[in-house]
Amino acid sequence: MAPGPICAAAQCSFDDPEPGHVPRPSGLVGAVATCEAGDMVNEVVDITEKLSLFSEHWSPKVVARLNDYEIKVVKVKGEFVWHTHDDTDELFLVVAGELSIQLRDGDVRLSAGQLFVVPRGVEHCPVADGEVHALLIEPTGVVNTGDAGGALTAAYDDSLA
Amino acid sequence: MAPGPICAAAQCSFDDPEPGHVPRPSGLVGAVATCEAGDMVNEVVDITEKLSLFSEHWSPKVVARLNDYEIKVVKVKGEFVWHTHDDTDELFLVVAGELSIQLRDGDVRLSAGQLFVVPRGVEHCPVADGEVHALLIEPTGVVNTGDAGGALTAAYDDSLA
Repeated sequence: MAPGPICAAAQCSFDDPEPGHVPRPSGLVGAVATCEAGDMVNEVVDITEKLSLFSEHWSPKVVARLNDYEIKVVKVKGEFVWHTHDDTDELFLVVAGELSIQLRDGDVRLSAGQLFVVPRGVEHCPVADGEVHALLIEPTGVVNTGDAGGALTAAYDDSLA
Repeated sequence: MAPGPICAAAQCSFDDPEPGHVPRPSGLVGAVATCEAGDMVNEVVDITEKLSLFSEHWSPKVVARLNDYEIKVVKVKGEFVWHTHDDTDELFLVVAGELSIQLRDGDVRLSAGQLFVVPRGVEHCPVADGEVHALLIEPTGVVNTGDAGGALTAAYDDSLA
């Protein structure tokens, strides 16, 4: 069998998997693919590479899990919707571009390499003149529009995880 | 009174604070300082700027909080100690340099912009030939050496938060 892709999380290939690893039948993405091996093997996540795999705005994609939290990548442009997450803080880490997070008592401005945690219960509305690439970290199951709902509510998407 | 630093999280200065904000008497750091206002005001965290404020290795510094999780910056160089966190996953996000996370079944290699989650219960040992700057995310109170203890166990440090 020709050499296959390497499992990024361990010294393991899909053609000659480590004990307990099961090559995934589909969804392999470059060098960051992993075998399936339950909870024991995670994936190296290249943030820029994950962001290159989609183009839509305001549609966060889960790329990793940390206990009962999810790490998501998202592209945004324009103004979102004012909303609140009553039960959780929400972390924004800007990877590229300039993001404003409007709060009712002023705006927070974030450049690449800067992060901000919106406290639970604080109404906010992200807005970006140009396209922004960002990381979001929040508990599993948080809906992007919080209490507001509406057309910008994104479907849960962990296809990149 | 001369104009003072601006509270980064809201339209608020230390000389003319918003209602409920209390100017901090010390520890102001450039433009990312904030007033104290309970849970309502968080700080814009510039990751590179936070990393410029210390030089020691293997001594994570809390820079932000997300519910009951902490976001820490750390500089590492050389080999750490093999250890396990039995009760939690641990997220590594490399900001600069090349980090290897040794696992018992192989190494994970991370460059800038790449992240990896070490699953709970998985023994690991970070190692870096050159200096690496990284972000760690884990629940509040996690000790860097996990079950191993020893000389590299870092004191809890949230002086940059």
